[in-house]
Amino acid sequence: MDAAAEVDHLAGERAAARFDVEAMKVAWAGSRHAVEVGDRMARLVASDPVFRKDNRTMLSRKDLFKDTLRKAAHAWKRIVELRLTEEEAGMLRLYVDQPGYVDLHWGMFVPAIKGQGTEEQQKKWLPMAYKFQIIGCYAQTELGHGSNVQGLETTATFDPKTDEFVIHSPTLTSSKWWPGGLGKASTHAVVYARLITEGKDYGIHGFIVQLRSLEDHSPLPGVTLGDIGGKFGSGAYNSMDNGVLRFDHVRIPRDQMLMRLSQVTREGKYVNSDVPKQLLYGTMVFVRQTIVADASKALSRAVCIAVRYSAIRKQFGSQDGGPETKVLDYKTQQSRLFPLLASAYAFRFVGDWLKWLYMDVTQKLEAKDYSTLQEAHACTAGLKAVTTSATADAIEECRKLCGGHGYLNSSGLPELFAVYVPACTYEGDNIVLLLQVARILMKTVSQLASGKQPVGTMAYMGNVQYLMQCKCAVNTAEDWLNPVAIQEAFEARALRMAVNCAQNIGQAASQEEGFYERSPDLLEAAVAHIQLIIVTKFIAKVQQDIPGHGVKEQLQNLCNVYALYILHKHLGDFLATGCITPKQGALANEQLGKLYAQVRPNAVVLVDAFNYTDHYLGSVLGRYDGNVYPALYEEAWKDPLNETVVPEGYHEYLRPLLKQQLKLSRL
Amino acid sequence: MDAAAEVDHLAGERAAARFDVEAMKVAWAGSRHAVEVGDRMARLVASDPVFRKDNRTMLSRKDLFKDTLRKAAHAWKRIVELRLTEEEAGMLRLYVDQPGYVDLHWGMFVPAIKGQGTEEQQKKWLPMAYKFQIIGCYAQTELGHGSNVQGLETTATFDPKTDEFVIHSPTLTSSKWWPGGLGKASTHAVVYARLITEGKDYGIHGFIVQLRSLEDHSPLPGVTLGDIGGKFGSGAYNSMDNGVLRFDHVRIPRDQMLMRLSQVTREGKYVNSDVPKQLLYGTMVFVRQTIVADASKALSRAVCIAVRYSAIRKQFGSQDGGPETKVLDYKTQQSRLFPLLASAYAFRFVGDWLKWLYMDVTQKLEAKDYSTLQEAHACTAGLKAVTTSATADAIEECRKLCGGHGYLNSSGLPELFAVYVPACTYEGDNIVLLLQVARILMKTVSQLASGKQPVGTMAYMGNVQYLMQCKCAVNTAEDWLNPVAIQEAFEARALRMAVNCAQNIGQAASQEEGFYERSPDLLEAAVAHIQLIIVTKFIAKVQQDIPGHGVKEQLQNLCNVYALYILHKHLGDFLATGCITPKQGALANEQLGKLYAQVRPNAVVLVDAFNYTDHYLGSVLGRYDGNVYPALYEEAWKDPLNETVVPEGYHEYLRPLLKQQLKLSRL
Repeated sequence: MDAAAEVDHLAGERAAARFDVEAMKVAWAGSRHAVEVGDRMARLVASDPVFRKDNRTMLSRKDLFKDTLRKAAHAWKRIVELRLTEEEAGMLRLYVDQPGYVDLHWGMFVPAIKGQGTEEQQKKWLPMAYKFQIIGCYAQTELGHGSNVQGLETTATFDPKTDEFVIHSPTLTSSKWWPGGLGKASTHAVVYARLITEGKDYGIHGFIVQLRSLEDHSPLPGVTLGDIGGKFGSGAYNSMDNGVLRFDHVRIPRDQMLMRLSQVTREGKYVNSDVPKQLLYGTMVFVRQTIVADASKALSRAVCIAVRYSAIRKQFGSQDGGPETKVLDYKTQQSRLFPLLASAYAFRFVGDWLKWLYMDVTQKLEAKDYSTLQEAHACTAGLKAVTTSATADAIEECRKLCGGHGYLNSSGLPELFAVYVPACTYEGDNIVLLLQVARILMKTVSQLASGKQPVGTMAYMGNVQYLMQCKCAVNTAEDWLNPVAIQEAFEARALRMAVNCAQNIGQAASQEEGFYERSPDLLEAAVAHIQLIIVTKFIAKVQQDIPGHGVKEQLQNLCNVYALYILHKHLGDFLATGCITPKQGALANEQLGKLYAQVRPNAVVLVDAFNYTDHYLGSVLGRYDGNVYPALYEEAWKDPLNETVVPEGYHEYLRPLLKQQLKLSRL
Repeated sequence: MDAAAEVDHLAGERAAARFDVEAMKVAWAGSRHAVEVGDRMARLVASDPVFRKDNRTMLSRKDLFKDTLRKAAHAWKRIVELRLTEEEAGMLRLYVDQPGYVDLHWGMFVPAIKGQGTEEQQKKWLPMAYKFQIIGCYAQTELGHGSNVQGLETTATFDPKTDEFVIHSPTLTSSKWWPGGLGKASTHAVVYARLITEGKDYGIHGFIVQLRSLEDHSPLPGVTLGDIGGKFGSGAYNSMDNGVLRFDHVRIPRDQMLMRLSQVTREGKYVNSDVPKQLLYGTMVFVRQTIVADASKALSRAVCIAVRYSAIRKQFGSQDGGPETKVLDYKTQQSRLFPLLASAYAFRFVGDWLKWLYMDVTQKLEAKDYSTLQEAHACTAGLKAVTTSATADAIEECRKLCGGHGYLNSSGLPELFAVYVPACTYEGDNIVLLLQVARILMKTVSQLASGKQPVGTMAYMGNVQYLMQCKCAVNTAEDWLNPVAIQEAFEARALRMAVNCAQNIGQAASQEEGFYERSPDLLEAAVAHIQLIIVTKFIAKVQQDIPGHGVKEQLQNLCNVYALYILHKHLGDFLATGCITPKQGALANEQLGKLYAQVRPNAVVLVDAFNYTDHYLGSVLGRYDGNVYPALYEEAWKDPLNETVVPEGYHEYLRPLLKQQLKLSRL
């Protein structure tokens, strides 16, 4: 992909694949146009020395942060110079691949103003934000308050005398804590605080607050700002200035309250506008949809590295001393790695579908049709939780699948893991989100008796009478290739688990107590429901017309791998609910083994289809040309510890030890 | 534990516990003496400013390495000055808690000479090693060769003309790669190489090779040495100089071959000694037993942090706006955290038992009784694999259970994870080890028909006729508190999975092909067998007399939590093999929920019983006094990024952006 390799060590693998990789690139990216733009932007980044990132894990925190500022400014310069479209600019930022304040500026600050600001406010603030005359972030969570937004302590008290809000941090735990871009870069923030007017607390609202001088970047009076300190990994998210912020009675004009949904009048009256609050859910659907798309990106990067290196690395072999066997040929490696490859594709396609769902929801909201909103919200929340948890685990599994060398920073996997895992916590902790899904599942079950038909991804629950008693018809391993059999088994499992939970809750003293007591089971029921959605959307995808030699067949294989892998992993669910028999479970596992054999010759090209440059992968093990060992060797010598052959500290701490002069030496 | 806290925020939790914490400390540590020594050494380390580690994640690689040299020298100085016993010295090094060359010197170099050197060789080399006149490491793995020791490429060719071995690295992939302490600190190594004499390759043997001058620490002629570069995490294992080593025809005297098991004569004849090769297995049992003990230490640290912080952190609450609920009171938190608490105890006790097993094996080896060696080897290999994998996952789970703050380095959890995970790969990759267990399981099954009685942890397999058809008698949730019911279900599950595998392999064209095809299933069977051992040893422990008010009851609860958690997690195994019915599975899950309620009031004191100092825990979230939030806040300001309010890079990269002068600026 990058500079021409002299030898392609994976050429044999590439020649053996049974499908058209260019067509698969289109299937993965979504369109030929998307492939082309992605390709162009990836090369633009890879060829620009400013965007170099191979030294990132060796930089000190300060140098890493400075490097991030430099890249952000350079990226903006290129975007302006080349007059990139919004799509191109987004791609460029993706391939720069370094968390920084711009992510929050574009991803949270601007959308918050768009979603919660009045037209007037948008006219005032957005042009400045679009031109980077101000840099904004999103200051919601506090030192003592995360998921429970209603528990935030920061106050915004209206002072009718001066027509201002007074923003204040009344306790230590009310310190804003975690917002990205807050610590060092942002000049402004959307700050969430309890709105208090006329002595009454109206709950949490958003306010645009200037934090730093636009002249010299120093914090404004009453504002305390800092970075919250180092985070998981070297490199990784340490490029981001996640921040702490305290207010000491900071005053802002009344019109910096985000007033689209509610306002405070000049007299201090709190007034709701006629804009429906449901609009906020639309924004959450949007943000979480992007997180699902990001999950497939992160997972596919890890899988790409692990598959390529597994096709290079050899270990053990025929007992007569012949050449060693490629690790990728081992069934144990396949049974751990190919489900992750299939998951990358599964998450990609469910992410595509979520994009459609967001558009659908948006259109309905504009028509004041809220009928599918709750279901769409549950579905995106659940997909966010399931895909991010699975991706975090999978990246670490890919690292382990690379053996010892996966532990080296030069493998790229430690940083990929460390930078990814916060996705399990931010934008809704995964457990909290799954409990939200469970709540809606329980509500839906309780309404089934009254004949209310569930909609969207919950529509299958309307088929309750059939699904509660159906028997799986699988008789042979091949029968498991029938999407109808898979679909039905997943629907029956999800529904039966939900109904079981509902029945158990029904026996409790109260609904709330039952929900509390059964919450671990409810998590499992929610996961089952979300996995059904992923399987369903993958099946729907492969039933479409997909152009390109062999492409559809490969995706069918991966779809079956994903479904049967989940079935095997959660076999207890399927057996306990009587959806399948132990014999059918064994047949599914047998079929899974056969599918691995079919994936094997195509595996390397299935990851080539992600179309990642060596720069973006950032991994010596995942090199396109497979020339791993010389690269590992070269990379080692770049470590600062290798600047001298005899290490610093030898004279103070090693020589006295070796010379038995330790007691005399000062340590 | 450390300096007296002004307020104990966990006092309420501590007052509510229903058992004697001092007696539990004894049960955990193994004896009152062990508690006392541990306590004394932990305080010695915690009170010594040289051993400070709170700044570790902020140090550059070079400074971190230098800090490690300093701590190692200082620790040695204290050990000598205070005339510490070997036990005390080991404890002191444990609490210093920073990977470094001394670990390999004591843990691998010295034992290799002891185990594989002749008496003469031991007399020559060990005194120098004991006094640190030389520093040694263990150079086995190569750039292209890990688990498959027989695939190593480094050669040691005997030259009868000079009575020397010529050590050589013939290829790039033969470069020694990974050995700890090799890169910068060691003066010597035990090097594993293919012994070639009289033109014949006799396979892998160990050689003592001097690498660096004892005068100025420079590499000897023909020796290339370096560090292999940064590894996962900040701080963590980057304190260790894992190294790369190449030989260009380096000559060593013949008597530096480790000659206990085989020798090369002056004439170049290869001769086996009469020392049985089985002795090598004894060493592996020893090393892996320490790894299991380390797993319980690492896991208990993570659990200690997560339990304490979960008893401080509050979130959501009664819907009428009352105070928020402690996170530890949520059933979802309990169902994720308490099984890990139970696992920490389970691994601790199985580790204790492994110590006994090692002594037993050693005694038998001395009496030339090899009857239990294979079983003991399989058992330790499997326990190494299962406990390290579970611990790595559990540390990350504990991190997630701490919410966003677990992602901060100041939580201690990122470093704990990053420093721990290599345990899944070193000293035998976990998958490779489990396949070894599976091989012995298959062999044992195949011998059952011939009436050969399995021994030790495999003895239950002799009960095959009963276990293949027995039916679980559980009728109520409480029935699952009966250890006989648990034991039988776990035995039946493990045996039936093994027998299933053996039957499937029997249908293949050959045994080898069957083993290869079924290897994913074999992994699962091996895990089932090992989990049975852990459950069995935990049950045996709690059936002993355990002094102290309430201690035995607490351990019984934890034992049941561990067993029923594993049962629930692997429900598919138990159901598919017909060991229990779906109804019995549901009862087990119900009982598990009740057990969580019993663990809840004791949880904080159950982690206090680990007796860890705040220094050793190294976690703001895990503080003994629970005073988390002020500590988090203070910790943040120590980050180098906070040295200035306006960040470095503002003038170059932020101001031009904000002032719209970007195009004019040079980036």
